[in-house]
Amino acid sequence: MATSSNIPDSQSQTSGMWGGRFTEATDAFVAEFTASVQFDQRFYKQDIAGSIAHATMLCKVGVLTEIERDQIIQGLTTIQAEIEAGQFVWRVELEDVHMNIESSLTERIGITGKKLHTGRSRNDQVATDIRLYLRDEIDDILTILKKLQLGLLSLAAQHTDTIMPGFTHLQTAQPVTFGHHLLAWFEMLVRDTERLKDCRKRVNRLPLGSAALAGTTYPIDRHYTAELLGFDEVTENSLDGVSDRDFAIEFNAAAALIMMHLSRMSEELILWTSAQFKFVQIPDRFCTGSSIMPQKKNPDVPELVRGKSGRVFGDLMSLLTLMKGQPLAYNKDNQEDKEPLFDAIDTVRGSLMAFADMVPALVPHQEIMREAALRGFSTATDLADYLVKKGTAFRDAHEIVGKAVALAVNEDKDLSELSLEQLQQFSDLIGQDVFDQALTLEASVHARNHIGGTAPAQVQAAIERAHQRINALYA
Amino acid sequence: MATSSNIPDSQSQTSGMWGGRFTEATDAFVAEFTASVQFDQRFYKQDIAGSIAHATMLCKVGVLTEIERDQIIQGLTTIQAEIEAGQFVWRVELEDVHMNIESSLTERIGITGKKLHTGRSRNDQVATDIRLYLRDEIDDILTILKKLQLGLLSLAAQHTDTIMPGFTHLQTAQPVTFGHHLLAWFEMLVRDTERLKDCRKRVNRLPLGSAALAGTTYPIDRHYTAELLGFDEVTENSLDGVSDRDFAIEFNAAAALIMMHLSRMSEELILWTSAQFKFVQIPDRFCTGSSIMPQKKNPDVPELVRGKSGRVFGDLMSLLTLMKGQPLAYNKDNQEDKEPLFDAIDTVRGSLMAFADMVPALVPHQEIMREAALRGFSTATDLADYLVKKGTAFRDAHEIVGKAVALAVNEDKDLSELSLEQLQQFSDLIGQDVFDQALTLEASVHARNHIGGTAPAQVQAAIERAHQRINALYA
Amino acid sequence: MATSSNIPDSQSQTSGMWGGRFTEATDAFVAEFTASVQFDQRFYKQDIAGSIAHATMLCKVGVLTEIERDQIIQGLTTIQAEIEAGQFVWRVELEDVHMNIESSLTERIGITGKKLHTGRSRNDQVATDIRLYLRDEIDDILTILKKLQLGLLSLAAQHTDTIMPGFTHLQTAQPVTFGHHLLAWFEMLVRDTERLKDCRKRVNRLPLGSAALAGTTYPIDRHYTAELLGFDEVTENSLDGVSDRDFAIEFNAAAALIMMHLSRMSEELILWTSAQFKFVQIPDRFCTGSSIMPQKKNPDVPELVRGKSGRVFGDLMSLLTLMKGQPLAYNKDNQEDKEPLFDAIDTVRGSLMAFADMVPALVPHQEIMREAALRGFSTATDLADYLVKKGTAFRDAHEIVGKAVALAVNEDKDLSELSLEQLQQFSDLIGQDVFDQALTLEASVHARNHIGGTAPAQVQAAIERAHQRINALYA
Amino acid sequence: MATSSNIPDSQSQTSGMWGGRFTEATDAFVAEFTASVQFDQRFYKQDIAGSIAHATMLCKVGVLTEIERDQIIQGLTTIQAEIEAGQFVWRVELEDVHMNIESSLTERIGITGKKLHTGRSRNDQVATDIRLYLRDEIDDILTILKKLQLGLLSLAAQHTDTIMPGFTHLQTAQPVTFGHHLLAWFEMLVRDTERLKDCRKRVNRLPLGSAALAGTTYPIDRHYTAELLGFDEVTENSLDGVSDRDFAIEFNAAAALIMMHLSRMSEELILWTSAQFKFVQIPDRFCTGSSIMPQKKNPDVPELVRGKSGRVFGDLMSLLTLMKGQPLAYNKDNQEDKEPLFDAIDTVRGSLMAFADMVPALVPHQEIMREAALRGFSTATDLADYLVKKGTAFRDAHEIVGKAVALAVNEDKDLSELSLEQLQQFSDLIGQDVFDQALTLEASVHARNHIGGTAPAQVQAAIERAHQRINALYA
Repeated sequence: MATSSNIPDSQSQTSGMWGGRFTEATDAFVAEFTASVQFDQRFYKQDIAGSIAHATMLCKVGVLTEIERDQIIQGLTTIQAEIEAGQFVWRVELEDVHMNIESSLTERIGITGKKLHTGRSRNDQVATDIRLYLRDEIDDILTILKKLQLGLLSLAAQHTDTIMPGFTHLQTAQPVTFGHHLLAWFEMLVRDTERLKDCRKRVNRLPLGSAALAGTTYPIDRHYTAELLGFDEVTENSLDGVSDRDFAIEFNAAAALIMMHLSRMSEELILWTSAQFKFVQIPDRFCTGSSIMPQKKNPDVPELVRGKSGRVFGDLMSLLTLMKGQPLAYNKDNQEDKEPLFDAIDTVRGSLMAFADMVPALVPHQEIMREAALRGFSTATDLADYLVKKGTAFRDAHEIVGKAVALAVNEDKDLSELSLEQLQQFSDLIGQDVFDQALTLEASVHARNHIGGTAPAQVQAAIERAHQRINALYA
Repeated sequence: MATSSNIPDSQSQTSGMWGGRFTEATDAFVAEFTASVQFDQRFYKQDIAGSIAHATMLCKVGVLTEIERDQIIQGLTTIQAEIEAGQFVWRVELEDVHMNIESSLTERIGITGKKLHTGRSRNDQVATDIRLYLRDEIDDILTILKKLQLGLLSLAAQHTDTIMPGFTHLQTAQPVTFGHHLLAWFEMLVRDTERLKDCRKRVNRLPLGSAALAGTTYPIDRHYTAELLGFDEVTENSLDGVSDRDFAIEFNAAAALIMMHLSRMSEELILWTSAQFKFVQIPDRFCTGSSIMPQKKNPDVPELVRGKSGRVFGDLMSLLTLMKGQPLAYNKDNQEDKEPLFDAIDTVRGSLMAFADMVPALVPHQEIMREAALRGFSTATDLADYLVKKGTAFRDAHEIVGKAVALAVNEDKDLSELSLEQLQQFSDLIGQDVFDQALTLEASVHARNHIGGTAPAQVQAAIERAHQRINALYA
Repeated sequence: MATSSNIPDSQSQTSGMWGGRFTEATDAFVAEFTASVQFDQRFYKQDIAGSIAHATMLCKVGVLTEIERDQIIQGLTTIQAEIEAGQFVWRVELEDVHMNIESSLTERIGITGKKLHTGRSRNDQVATDIRLYLRDEIDDILTILKKLQLGLLSLAAQHTDTIMPGFTHLQTAQPVTFGHHLLAWFEMLVRDTERLKDCRKRVNRLPLGSAALAGTTYPIDRHYTAELLGFDEVTENSLDGVSDRDFAIEFNAAAALIMMHLSRMSEELILWTSAQFKFVQIPDRFCTGSSIMPQKKNPDVPELVRGKSGRVFGDLMSLLTLMKGQPLAYNKDNQEDKEPLFDAIDTVRGSLMAFADMVPALVPHQEIMREAALRGFSTATDLADYLVKKGTAFRDAHEIVGKAVALAVNEDKDLSELSLEQLQQFSDLIGQDVFDQALTLEASVHARNHIGGTAPAQVQAAIERAHQRINALYA
Repeated sequence: MATSSNIPDSQSQTSGMWGGRFTEATDAFVAEFTASVQFDQRFYKQDIAGSIAHATMLCKVGVLTEIERDQIIQGLTTIQAEIEAGQFVWRVELEDVHMNIESSLTERIGITGKKLHTGRSRNDQVATDIRLYLRDEIDDILTILKKLQLGLLSLAAQHTDTIMPGFTHLQTAQPVTFGHHLLAWFEMLVRDTERLKDCRKRVNRLPLGSAALAGTTYPIDRHYTAELLGFDEVTENSLDGVSDRDFAIEFNAAAALIMMHLSRMSEELILWTSAQFKFVQIPDRFCTGSSIMPQKKNPDVPELVRGKSGRVFGDLMSLLTLMKGQPLAYNKDNQEDKEPLFDAIDTVRGSLMAFADMVPALVPHQEIMREAALRGFSTATDLADYLVKKGTAFRDAHEIVGKAVALAVNEDKDLSELSLEQLQQFSDLIGQDVFDQALTLEASVHARNHIGGTAPAQVQAAIERAHQRINALYA
């Protein structure tokens, strides 16, 4: 944050890293305001890995000696250990993670430390670090996504023939199975996996070697560095290499879609756990109570996740706005790319973890769901289809059933509770078989027996295909 | 728009399409407010193509006779011709493009028209239509993108050794070539192509057969319909099929990135055509003047495109917000998916067309760009590298050059205008060769000779690779 | 839209309005792409009113003769009549509403028409037009807001003692009255009125006289023009006058809040009309049906309004993004201010109109709401308060009641259905009076008897104050 | 953040605050994920002030004794001192700032601590805390805004007749004074002050007494509490009181406008400090250098502020999205209101502080600005006006000058460098006086002599009015 408390007491010194031409020390508030080490220390590991690869490459092409290379690697390794032990002192006046680590390296190993920055700039260094960091985070998120997907499949497998009302417009529409409904959630998340994988391809390109903006005069071997760091490709243009943040925006867009999906699931869980629906119970360990109302058990996790979706949308907006007005190449604006990216990563990961734990523990109330499906004329379409099969045109059948529903509403009954005589008022094609073939829930769901349909057999087959698809996606 | 003028004079009748159970006609303002035909008539062609495929499939599986199928196809073909001749009367009280066309079909061919809707719902119908429509638009946009990319390559090929200042922080940084700069733009647009292609995969899946939400009781053959309409796959889950709008959001996110890129290019063009930069001239035909200031020639196209970026960001936010709170399956909210999608499509297409025309017509002022590169100490890094090659550690070299720059600022000279003696004050490693090897623009750009670097040879090679990459991407 | 169809067949001519220095005609696509007349003709009335005021002022200060002034006014009046009769031909090659009208004026009255633009520019002209237009629209919206507010008060007045469950976390929390709930909606809308009025103050300042950016050399009298057009003040700085669009953003932010409020109300109406809640019935005339499911009656209006909220949020983002990168003064980007503003205006007005019609027609199902309040332990807090009044500390009382609730959950009963003995297990302070004083719905709501509380007497008093507040706000 | 490190080692206990009815302890990850104390401890001071006022009121109405009240106040005062000394241990398992403080109070003073929560809920407590916090922050921000406004006026006063080119479309338009340009910035910020003050009115209303959602059964005196805490009014409806977050959104919208303004100023400062413009120098203490390019001096502060604007737009989007789908009354989603609000506050405050320091230190390069104004035909409009005053109609004069400009472009001269003969080619109304009366910069700026115009006398008068307006606004 701009105004955090660790402002240095006095005016900071002119930076030893770039202060040669300056006649005046940086203002202390400005030093704090423009520093990024408060948040970019988060990718110290990637910064060090990048520096080790860079030094290794510089040695290979003859810019560093093997001794220099080894000193650098040794020094960086020690620094990493100190950071991880919580013993490293981050200094705001050194601006960022890069300068903090390089400066510490030089303190340790002397003049050789000053050679590490040969042939690179902070501009390409930070672009490399973020890509490495984001690649690792995408891989983590994919793992959690998979866990949630498997949890959904496992719950769905237990409920391939558990009947509940399907809704459109939140009005009872047609009966579906609970397993089928859970598979709809699964489909959303499969697209998320696909998108993250597509995004990862564009993240995993090495910008190092772009230097400040134009490349470098040293005989660098970018493909070798890429190989050392596991990048698939090198970026093709140095100006683009330092100024491109598409990968962060693309990730945030994918993250926004994940959150949108979790928000929709949350919306349903909140409805389903209300006293009015009571379709599902969330175990106590995922809920909290009220400080004033002793009876309350609140579905906090879905509510919070629903709320957190807005935050990731905002992060996406921040990044788009950030980039849209910048001329090439690197501008200081870009420093603002990190916090929205980190916030999106943290929010998505936490929300997915919470769902991956909670979803398999959901307990559906099967009787209540079935009872709800029985009400609300959920088999009205089946009655229309019944009439069509007996020869009525669909639009006419629709009209006939609409009138039967109006009667039933009037009598406060379900369609299946009307007598045959009452039904026959509307069409003499209706026979006794209507009760078995059209108006029962089982008949209704089993009849939707095609790929994508809610019939239990289809749901079962979809689960089997889903396992294969997951295996292919995460291969 | 919500309040457009063609509100029917009196209360509309209860819809013949669904009014069976209703006791009261729809309020006239509500009919207008909730109708979508004002904007969804845009995809009449896709709606008709979808209906023809649906009828063909229904016939194949025995739900329609061949005569019925042919009547339907004949009727729809006539309707399409009427629409395209501007003779079709769209009726707001029929709500949407689907009802308008189906209702007209029934007027023409009688009861058979009423059979067309068998085994589908407007929910899966509209999802199919939008996907078809968007697929076509993506293909159009890809074509325009390619034109712009080729235009960039062609202009770049003429300027592989035209020198201009490269900027970071809008301060002169290092010399680059104009061709190299244009290739940075090209790289942005290549990622856009990749993303559109990734998005297209997920657009091109057939939801038809999901019916209202649960699938249908008719023995439909979804794979056959998919084949008829050129879809790669069928969607796996009916609840998801009718409620999924990921594809629209993903497209809008890709569109937002395209606009962000065009906005950055615009920002540069606006700078470059200012009296202060004068790097580039935009031909008069892409500019307009002022109603009050007779001397003005304004870079309207880039300004407008820069301005239009915000609009597509807003469209993306609209769609994300739209979807995030909806329980499954279809809700009326979804009707609001179209206008933001259409607006993004139109804006991206128009902006790309304008750029594809304008970019190849840009005229760089080579002397002015070169002159600008000579100022601003753009070869200072080269001097530092020169010192490193003579044995100075990079950080020390940086410090030395910083001091030389401070002197030059003081004397209002460029580094290359300092005398050898002046330069040697700062380091006795500096020799006469510094003027040729480090301080000329040509030396500077040619030295950055690695993949991604600004050396003319590299730019030339990058252009060649670029043509191959385009061929592969648009294969 | 960028790509609408009325592109002139051939290259347009160089504009007569500003083409003096141009050597090449505008490209036809560019002419279309950069024109605004397609959407800015919407404020022709304000443009003409502004021109009439400007001419009147120019005459007063001696720049126009009375005859010239009268010719201009006469010509503009005729043009307005033609526009309103649908006979005016808008020409894209004349770019915008201003040029179309001015050009037509000169065609009619000759050289005097060319004098109208003396001392002004399109830059200050359009800023004036939008402010006039927005001021009128704000006044319209305030009128509709008031109608909706009065509708809420009227419905609330009928239900000051109609009991329903109040929710937090969508879990039953405590009983409230339906009137009280409606007043919560009312409060949201009152803040909207306040914000629109605050915004209107900043809209209602006259920028005319800023000319292109620096003011004009003519002896204009801006205060006189302001008076003629009903502006409260003149803007203080010409550069700011032509570049400021704060008023549009501020309006869109206020509009976003209105839509957010309507979206929350919609969310509740959709819940309340579901089969699970059944708290409220929306008359058929505000609903539509399904093309496939004959029983459906969908709450389209609230669903659509909920969906439309995202659109206005997007419009707000568009405008903020639009403005944030522009240097002073006017840039072409600003042309993009209109469509997001118009879209927000139309959406808010239509949504408010729909609600203003629908809300007073809502029919609550009082027995169902009461029944729902009886379940869900809504009086648990009252039991805790009962214990506090008998001497238990609040936190201990909370704990005791929590345990009683756990027992009731176990026995599938409400608290009021437990026996006295069962209740006394948890605290011997509980006496027979608990059933009357704490566990009835009436006792619960009547006890919350302070300003802002749900007691019927308080709701009644709040309605009375509300009428006074409305009178003051709309005075 | 969702994944911060202080997750309790083992499963947390069921909360003593609300756990009565729960049968299972909260999951440790869930406890962490749903807790807010990590960020809401920020308003501990407001929480304690609110509790002291609440206890004071409870005593006044007889719910607490004086001894109890004094114990509570004493305990809270001690806790505040501990927090401020950094000695207070915040516990995640206690969820939030409220529970942490209340729990600590009860540990200290025993059973009386448990009475503090009588007649309130965390729902109204947190709403009160945020309002108090935001009110304080608005007051701070207003103070910094005023400092920046005064800095602008002071710099403007030094430059009422310093001439620079005014731009539209970033093309040279007409000469203006630097003081006039700075006043345009001032006007933006004055509107920001107005908006913050309008927003503050709506922030400063007391929701305490709304309790969980319905009010409380205790005889509370809300007006007394309001008075103790300096609130202007009490909120009118308890359901609205706990669920309203308009004030946060309205603040964030005002913050977004402030950032948009600072971003526009930043854009100009970045342009002005480029080598191409060189209009202005930013002192070294507000700039940083490059780790690779020794000559660089980057305008970091304006770049960073420009970048930070996107972040506040995103925060606004987050909050709007957060609220739009929530039914009444309080939902857990609302917990997500804090971080976007805090981030907007911090960003605006830091950015304003940086500008308030930097702006008065700006050093304009007067000769360079004047030289730039001389180029680019900035007096072309004056020539047209000159012709109008000699009897030419404005549109004809515009055309004549356009042609003269075309000639001058051709000859690479300014208008004032054309000979009288050359000028007379275009109109014989042009006389020798044109050079003094129309074509000099001084003539041009002095001629725009009306309220809002750029004439030095007007700028001087505007500065004087500005001081009076500031006095009135901050009275």
